Amino acid sequence: MAIITLTTDFGERDHFAGATKGAIYCELPDVKIVDISHSISPFSIPEAAYIILNAYSSFPEGTIHIIGVDSELNEENKHIAVKLDGHYFICANNGIMSMICAEIAPEKIVEINIHDKIQTSFPVLDVFVKVACHIARGGTLEVVGKVIDSIKPIRNIIPFVNDDQTQIIGHIVYIDNYGNVITNIKRSFFEKIQRGRPFEISARNKTFDTIYNKYSDIVDFNIPPEKRNIEGRGMAVYSSGSYIEIAVYKSNPKTVGSASSLLGLDLMDTVTINFKKE
Amino acid sequence: MAIITLTTDFGERDHFAGATKGAIYCELPDVKIVDISHSISPFSIPEAAYIILNAYSSFPEGTIHIIGVDSELNEENKHIAVKLDGHYFICANNGIMSMICAEIAPEKIVEINIHDKIQTSFPVLDVFVKVACHIARGGTLEVVGKVIDSIKPIRNIIPFVNDDQTQIIGHIVYIDNYGNVITNIKRSFFEKIQRGRPFEISARNKTFDTIYNKYSDIVDFNIPPEKRNIEGRGMAVYSSGSYIEIAVYKSNPKTVGSASSLLGLDLMDTVTINFKKE
Amino acid sequence: MAIITLTTDFGERDHFAGATKGAIYCELPDVKIVDISHSISPFSIPEAAYIILNAYSSFPEGTIHIIGVDSELNEENKHIAVKLDGHYFICANNGIMSMICAEIAPEKIVEINIHDKIQTSFPVLDVFVKVACHIARGGTLEVVGKVIDSIKPIRNIIPFVNDDQTQIIGHIVYIDNYGNVITNIKRSFFEKIQRGRPFEISARNKTFDTIYNKYSDIVDFNIPPEKRNIEGRGMAVYSSGSYIEIAVYKSNPKTVGSASSLLGLDLMDTVTINFKKE
Repeated sequence: MAIITLTTDFGERDHFAGATKGAIYCELPDVKIVDISHSISPFSIPEAAYIILNAYSSFPEGTIHIIGVDSELNEENKHIAVKLDGHYFICANNGIMSMICAEIAPEKIVEINIHDKIQTSFPVLDVFVKVACHIARGGTLEVVGKVIDSIKPIRNIIPFVNDDQTQIIGHIVYIDNYGNVITNIKRSFFEKIQRGRPFEISARNKTFDTIYNKYSDIVDFNIPPEKRNIEGRGMAVYSSGSYIEIAVYKSNPKTVGSASSLLGLDLMDTVTINFKKE
Repeated sequence: MAIITLTTDFGERDHFAGATKGAIYCELPDVKIVDISHSISPFSIPEAAYIILNAYSSFPEGTIHIIGVDSELNEENKHIAVKLDGHYFICANNGIMSMICAEIAPEKIVEINIHDKIQTSFPVLDVFVKVACHIARGGTLEVVGKVIDSIKPIRNIIPFVNDDQTQIIGHIVYIDNYGNVITNIKRSFFEKIQRGRPFEISARNKTFDTIYNKYSDIVDFNIPPEKRNIEGRGMAVYSSGSYIEIAVYKSNPKTVGSASSLLGLDLMDTVTINFKKE
Repeated sequence: MAIITLTTDFGERDHFAGATKGAIYCELPDVKIVDISHSISPFSIPEAAYIILNAYSSFPEGTIHIIGVDSELNEENKHIAVKLDGHYFICANNGIMSMICAEIAPEKIVEINIHDKIQTSFPVLDVFVKVACHIARGGTLEVVGKVIDSIKPIRNIIPFVNDDQTQIIGHIVYIDNYGNVITNIKRSFFEKIQRGRPFEISARNKTFDTIYNKYSDIVDFNIPPEKRNIEGRGMAVYSSGSYIEIAVYKSNPKTVGSASSLLGLDLMDTVTINFKKE
């Protein structure tokens, strides 16, 4: 039986997520429902785009992902269903799918057109659940929408590279639970431009010339723990999703501070990589 | 197999919700457990009443709803199980069921009396789970309690209407994740009193003479987006549960503000509707 | 089919918890996954130890508990799998298991050694899920690790008792969602030292000579509610996990205050019990 995931800005307290799950079980008693996140910041399309990009590929092929962020239907915000990489995505055509689509071309996109009889201020419950259950029962996208060619993009997904390829300019697209900041510069993209050259990453007033594979790679285990003095030190590291991330070892935004708070880095801030002459 | 839902003030961090789910699976390995909310404010009966009212009816008939808010057993706070609208509810008799019961008459109410051998400071785990599993196995309410006639009410559920029906006085019963404020004035109740007359809704120092069906109904799509100037503007709208709600278009309590913060509206504040002469 | 539980510091918003669930379903479509908590404070080993200790035993025997807190593999932080009390635990060897192991001796501990081909900055997804699914399929611990004798301890788990047994010195190990503070003094331990003697519990500048079984035991129901004046009054009570807890009746950290805020009690603060002469 299919899996349906939920990624929304409903929050943890309100009834919306619970009601959505109830509505799914009414149609499909045996489906598996998985909460990816209900704590996307309200109406934050970049956050939702980042979360679903990093979560979806861990699920089995055929999984159906409902994304309930800024999903109210109007003439500028149509509903779409997308088949991509063997997965299905149901959301508004507001840019949420653009990070995934920048990496992998969609197999099919339809603009959902089953709204005739539905007058609603809760489209996730009334529209997205219906489409998800249709797909879970083996239905095709064409039955619930008309095929379209492309989705609405959001800006600044792809980092900028100058003409002589001596500089990459990216920016911060997400700040995670540990206060680590993740850029839009993917490892594969960086390495293609780098071609083995030495480099310097600049983020605000900090620079880094190494990108670690994991956080504790900055620890020198030959030094006794009490003399290491690495708390609060910044580092560049590849995120679990293979993006360049500026992190602080064992950070906690509420106590010792984090990359975001200690280094003064915020969403949309620029991160620059300069390559040195060979 | 039955569904058991959980609505509690346990919070997201503590072990209480996890332990409750474990205890249910010990008795019924094949049951489905759905979290409605664990983020009810501690001991907030009005919040719990609002959440369960708005969530329950999306679930299939026969669903069993455990509500773990202010549930410690004592002589003033008995445990009850209620059958209503084809659903089962297990909670303390502290007013939590009064919003639902104001809309739909219960089919049966029992005061739970299986506490003889249970000495507990965790009644959800020790008592409510037992009752829920008994019902899920097809057991009747009479086996776990004695039938009673009525439940404990809470005040201010029903809005006030003056004698000549020119005014409805309601109040704010919930503030949602987006900072929108929901009143206790239901659409059907409002329309029955309104009888088509023009009206003015007053909430603090704002007035509204229209109630929209969805948030983006206040947007004039003929105006280019950058000239619309609707951010932060208040509006009246029917909530997804069909109550009158005061909202702000695309609000976010942590950034741009919300109906609650921008319009200065808080729980229990009065919302008045005056009808004009025809 | 087995149950796999998740206790992590991933937070409610990020993609980590969702991705972990997806990875489990890829290997075992029919397993049950239960979230115990994703809101452990980042890198807080004592919090994780407390939560898993209080949650695990409510689950059926054979349940597999993944604990994802401070789990990055390095030479000082190995991965372990532990069989104890009929349950399985998968985590880093960083002290998280020491509260449970202080109560019940492990049946078997292995240091996980399947990392050869795994280069990862997300060990919960890449390592712990593999081990959990191996166990869920009936595999033995020896296949995924080499047997070791003992786990890494954390300090201050066991309260101190003076030589003539007139004093117990414990401390606060957890502050729950209601702001109640839980000590490391277990009821059975306390009663063994007490031997029926009268006692005085001191927590900062408050003292208590009674330990209640439930919160409302401090209420005198013969007094009318409006005259009881018990809001904000501190009390000692046995927690649902049978530890001595300092609580405030119907507390709410965000509104009326709590044991932690009203009595000035914080994590690691000392709680002393003095026994009086018989």
